[in-house]
Amino acid sequence: MSCNSLRRNGICLFVAGILAAAPMLAQTPTELNVMPLPAKVQIASGVLPIDRGFTIGFTGFRDERLDRSGQRFLATLHRETGIIFAAAGSQAGVLAPPDAARATLLVTTGRDSKPVQELGEDESYALEVTPAGAKLNAPTALGTLHGLQTFLQLVSITPNGFSVPAISIQDQPRFPWRGLMIDSARHFMPIAVIKRNLDGMEAVKMNVFHWHLSDNQGFRVESHRFPKLTSEGSDGLFYTQEEVREVIAYARDRGIRVVPEFDMPGHSTAWFAGYPELASGSGPYQIERRWGIFDPAMDPTNEKTYKFLNDLIGEMARLFPDQYFHIGGDEVNGKEWSANARVQEFMKAHNIRDNVELQAYFSQRVQELVVKHGKTTIGWDEVLIRGVPKKVVIQSWRGAESLSAAAKQGYSGILSNGYYIDLGWSAARHYTVDPMGGAAANLSDDEKKRILGGESTMWSEFVNAENVDSRIWPRNAAIAERFWSPQGTTDLDSMYRRMQAESVRLEWLGLTHRTYQRQMVQRMTGPASAEETAALMTLVETLEPVKDYTREALATEEPTSQTPLVRVVDAVNPESSTSRRFSANVDQFVAGSCKDAALTASLRTQLTQWARNDGSVEGVAQRSSIVEEAAPASAALSQSAELALGALDRIGQALPVPDELKKQQIDALNAFENQAHKSQLTIPARAAFQKLIEAAGNGGACSGVR
Amino acid sequence: MSCNSLRRNGICLFVAGILAAAPMLAQTPTELNVMPLPAKVQIASGVLPIDRGFTIGFTGFRDERLDRSGQRFLATLHRETGIIFAAAGSQAGVLAPPDAARATLLVTTGRDSKPVQELGEDESYALEVTPAGAKLNAPTALGTLHGLQTFLQLVSITPNGFSVPAISIQDQPRFPWRGLMIDSARHFMPIAVIKRNLDGMEAVKMNVFHWHLSDNQGFRVESHRFPKLTSEGSDGLFYTQEEVREVIAYARDRGIRVVPEFDMPGHSTAWFAGYPELASGSGPYQIERRWGIFDPAMDPTNEKTYKFLNDLIGEMARLFPDQYFHIGGDEVNGKEWSANARVQEFMKAHNIRDNVELQAYFSQRVQELVVKHGKTTIGWDEVLIRGVPKKVVIQSWRGAESLSAAAKQGYSGILSNGYYIDLGWSAARHYTVDPMGGAAANLSDDEKKRILGGESTMWSEFVNAENVDSRIWPRNAAIAERFWSPQGTTDLDSMYRRMQAESVRLEWLGLTHRTYQRQMVQRMTGPASAEETAALMTLVETLEPVKDYTREALATEEPTSQTPLVRVVDAVNPESSTSRRFSANVDQFVAGSCKDAALTASLRTQLTQWARNDGSVEGVAQRSSIVEEAAPASAALSQSAELALGALDRIGQALPVPDELKKQQIDALNAFENQAHKSQLTIPARAAFQKLIEAAGNGGACSGVR
Repeated sequence: MSCNSLRRNGICLFVAGILAAAPMLAQTPTELNVMPLPAKVQIASGVLPIDRGFTIGFTGFRDERLDRSGQRFLATLHRETGIIFAAAGSQAGVLAPPDAARATLLVTTGRDSKPVQELGEDESYALEVTPAGAKLNAPTALGTLHGLQTFLQLVSITPNGFSVPAISIQDQPRFPWRGLMIDSARHFMPIAVIKRNLDGMEAVKMNVFHWHLSDNQGFRVESHRFPKLTSEGSDGLFYTQEEVREVIAYARDRGIRVVPEFDMPGHSTAWFAGYPELASGSGPYQIERRWGIFDPAMDPTNEKTYKFLNDLIGEMARLFPDQYFHIGGDEVNGKEWSANARVQEFMKAHNIRDNVELQAYFSQRVQELVVKHGKTTIGWDEVLIRGVPKKVVIQSWRGAESLSAAAKQGYSGILSNGYYIDLGWSAARHYTVDPMGGAAANLSDDEKKRILGGESTMWSEFVNAENVDSRIWPRNAAIAERFWSPQGTTDLDSMYRRMQAESVRLEWLGLTHRTYQRQMVQRMTGPASAEETAALMTLVETLEPVKDYTREALATEEPTSQTPLVRVVDAVNPESSTSRRFSANVDQFVAGSCKDAALTASLRTQLTQWARNDGSVEGVAQRSSIVEEAAPASAALSQSAELALGALDRIGQALPVPDELKKQQIDALNAFENQAHKSQLTIPARAAFQKLIEAAGNGGACSGVR
Repeated sequence: MSCNSLRRNGICLFVAGILAAAPMLAQTPTELNVMPLPAKVQIASGVLPIDRGFTIGFTGFRDERLDRSGQRFLATLHRETGIIFAAAGSQAGVLAPPDAARATLLVTTGRDSKPVQELGEDESYALEVTPAGAKLNAPTALGTLHGLQTFLQLVSITPNGFSVPAISIQDQPRFPWRGLMIDSARHFMPIAVIKRNLDGMEAVKMNVFHWHLSDNQGFRVESHRFPKLTSEGSDGLFYTQEEVREVIAYARDRGIRVVPEFDMPGHSTAWFAGYPELASGSGPYQIERRWGIFDPAMDPTNEKTYKFLNDLIGEMARLFPDQYFHIGGDEVNGKEWSANARVQEFMKAHNIRDNVELQAYFSQRVQELVVKHGKTTIGWDEVLIRGVPKKVVIQSWRGAESLSAAAKQGYSGILSNGYYIDLGWSAARHYTVDPMGGAAANLSDDEKKRILGGESTMWSEFVNAENVDSRIWPRNAAIAERFWSPQGTTDLDSMYRRMQAESVRLEWLGLTHRTYQRQMVQRMTGPASAEETAALMTLVETLEPVKDYTREALATEEPTSQTPLVRVVDAVNPESSTSRRFSANVDQFVAGSCKDAALTASLRTQLTQWARNDGSVEGVAQRSSIVEEAAPASAALSQSAELALGALDRIGQALPVPDELKKQQIDALNAFENQAHKSQLTIPARAAFQKLIEAAGNGGACSGVR
């Protein structure tokens, strides 16, 4: 069925085909909505239209995983375009030889990847798109999986329907270890949450899912050998081994390794609920409900501890096929050790001078068990203590200094410091952190090779299944680009533009990082007028949670694992697009575009909306305890915007602002920001407001604006 | 853990408890956000707070289904409130005797419902809520399921956290057959779609899922006996028998019967793709891709047809346990019969005078097969032909006349005319249709008993998995209320208010009727500025699809099952809340509130937004073929709003409008509406625009406004 045969009255919308395709404007690589940006891109002229005749064919190495990837590719392409492909629903949309040769997208794969995916396998691919068709070539199935994602990102709507620009891409990752850690211990994350995040990881070419499976607040994997780990240590919230295998298979289908973490000897209270004999204290122990660093720690002086760990590590090493096994090792305060006479005696007898050395002894013993069960150990910075074998991989939460010091000593490592996505930083801030930055920049080439990549970490004190996606995405896409794309890929505007486009696509994959917000707002408002709901939406779209660890510090009640995550601070996004756009406009305005009437009007519209917003929030705050808690922040936003609006007026009228008044206004802005903190919220546009006030102070007239 | 022990600085947000609970304002039943409205409601003073100590206990009859309903209840309550109940994740949150007695909500069930749910079982329940606790009593498990839904709807946010008002409810349905039909044949609906709609049905107490499983465009259930029904007749899109059993169990858990429909002797082209010998024509046959009424029909003169149907009905009667078996029977045009000499000969030999009689003969034979396999037949109006046994149930697409005529003849029936939710009517229009309305109002009491209820019908020519929820919900909740609540429940304002509240809750159950819209808009815009996306959202939130069957009539290309459903007409909701609210405001304005400054300002704001909107849409329309198609409608909306804005100005300035100008403007409005039709869209606020123009014409001054 060609366009022409369907063209009954000049409209040929969805089957635009090659005949109707107009040449696209030339694009530079950063204009493509591809994230992470490929290593090498050359854009040609013309487009490959995507119509219902589109097919994908596989030659070279083929197996069921690639067949499934082809089906998944067509399903996503349908989601992107709505096109019902001729062979939809049957297997026929994915062509095998000899039909494969006539596929619109011909995929040639050299060989399978390893049965258990390994660190450092070839993940490269080459993608050639012409108006006549596309070819994807990859040495291994991993490259094929990545290349298919790139193709899907290239699809866009045009005046002639959907198409992919003619393009030539040579691509491979910069780092072999590109991970996301999800903490399923502090808040349990259902399998559906894990799976949709694996879908997201595949889309942005991340290849390691680091699964934090035990902590003080829960032990989350079924153990047949030690059933009380979950019966006493999980509140019934854990993964069966069958579910774990399902996740591992799901990840492998997407080119993702699954590295389990069992954190020890600290962060292990939940183990002790069922097996108190493992602990150094006298117990009894219960699942920890609070957040923080706690005293309970395994008893490193008791041979029974190692007997237990030998059995458990053996069981888990069989369950998780990946070569790497994460033993945690972070944040042991040693108090239980110091308080235990038997432990002290042991230390004396073995000439162990302090708790750091005692942990080193423990790590050494556990590391031997991991090796015994055929695995390679990975642990947080703390496991790197004198004498630890060079094969141990260091995951650095401490930072570039720590990581490069390890590299100098011969240890491989990955960087997580700077990628703590639970801290509420902007995508830009994460994006500018580079695993090869800081001290690592001065490493020798051999030492540099030991920096394997990095991992973003989604610690889950303040996230649950409802809002966790919003804390991971879309910012994690920017981090994924840092790990994949060439080091010189640093343009922030391009990053934000592409991240925004990818954010939409991620939602189509089932992630809920955009839909959660309105749903949370409706819980807190209850039935409300359209105006009230809109005002609450404006509030949550504008504000951000306080950053770093200040949420705990500002809490009026100690937050625990039982605290409902239903508040405005839980609903606001870590990075407000609205505030970011406004701030960018203010920068442009004060940089000299203050006579741009449209820009000025847009600033005025936004400021006016914010200034009036609290009026519509007030009524809901009276009816809802949840909204009431955010009332200080709502008032602070409106009052801050009012000040900025005044400054804008004065600039427009060329009325100068006396220094004293300017100072008062900036003080007031700071006071409003502090007021917002009462609701554990921050006003991200505050700096932009201050710029307007300062610009008004600098003479008031447009020419006086810096 | 009590509120007091947590009260560290006066804030006691989420554990408000009984001590902190303030009495709620008295409410009238229609102010409750319950839908369908219960038969009898008495509101008392005080509230039952919902805090983390909340438990539910079951006494009397208990089984695994009720246990699951309790778990599901707690999961939904968690979704509504965010509260982590003390026993979350374990089974302990659902208490059995002797602990049940101390549950916050004590549920007492008399007996189980029938193993296979039957028409007319007792579905009543009584719910008593006091500030100290709640009791739900039901004679059968069905009443228990319904009562739990009512409780969940009563939960609301207050100044002191979440609570349920003290209340006394006696409730039972008005009709025993309260159904939703989903057409899985024209567009296949994945199991996930079916399940989430069953969740929605449970929430609004519908109890029959009528599953339209075969039609010209597809046969959607695996048959072991006749595998070519799906291998040749489904494009690979069908339900396995295992999946069907899963859906039936899922439905039973929610108090819902599953009635399968296999439409015959017409609407059956898909059967003939694999089994052309069943047909009256010479074939060959292929799955039909177009919409409409087609010639192919089963051969009613061939004994092999009945042999086949005997085997198939037998297989399906075993698969679907419900007592009722739907044989379709609608829209046979008889052309294949008339053209077939052998059929003609048969008719002559058997003294069958016309095709209507021939279909009667066929229906009679099929009906005997259905009875032979232990089932009761249900069919569309057409099956009611002279001599059909009285046990056959009539589903009326023709209307109240047809249905009450059937009742007079002794046939039981259900009404679907008026509940065709695929036609894009407003909720109000469906709501005012009553199964006992029209001719049925004059039936005798005995005849009235034969009106069993009704069914909304979701025909799927223009819906797919992506937007089907939006065509069913929330309007289906209003229809569910019509079938459940007392006949006098007719207040439209109350209905809309409660439907809106229920709409939010339905989304929490996983329905996508609110999230789909933005996602569809983002597909059609591609990466666009925030302003452009907002303008497109305004457009889709304001307009509606053309109604009834005009979409086909207006189509520039014949729509088929291959047509992508990605257009603006697919993204707009059948009923625009924005336009409805605006129209209500205009009614208030012209009814005399034209001096209400806030009201006038709100009209002006909305009209101004609409008037300017096309400016922001234009840019996207140039880049996107999909948006381009809606450009006429976008321009029409802005131009119409411009006229209405002018009228509002004249009213404000007391400037009279000459009759000639008024007439010109109304003509222009009509022209704009026709222009919108080019995009298969309608402007629902058009009538309101006209009212403003007419009001301006009537003297212009406020006092002149009608």
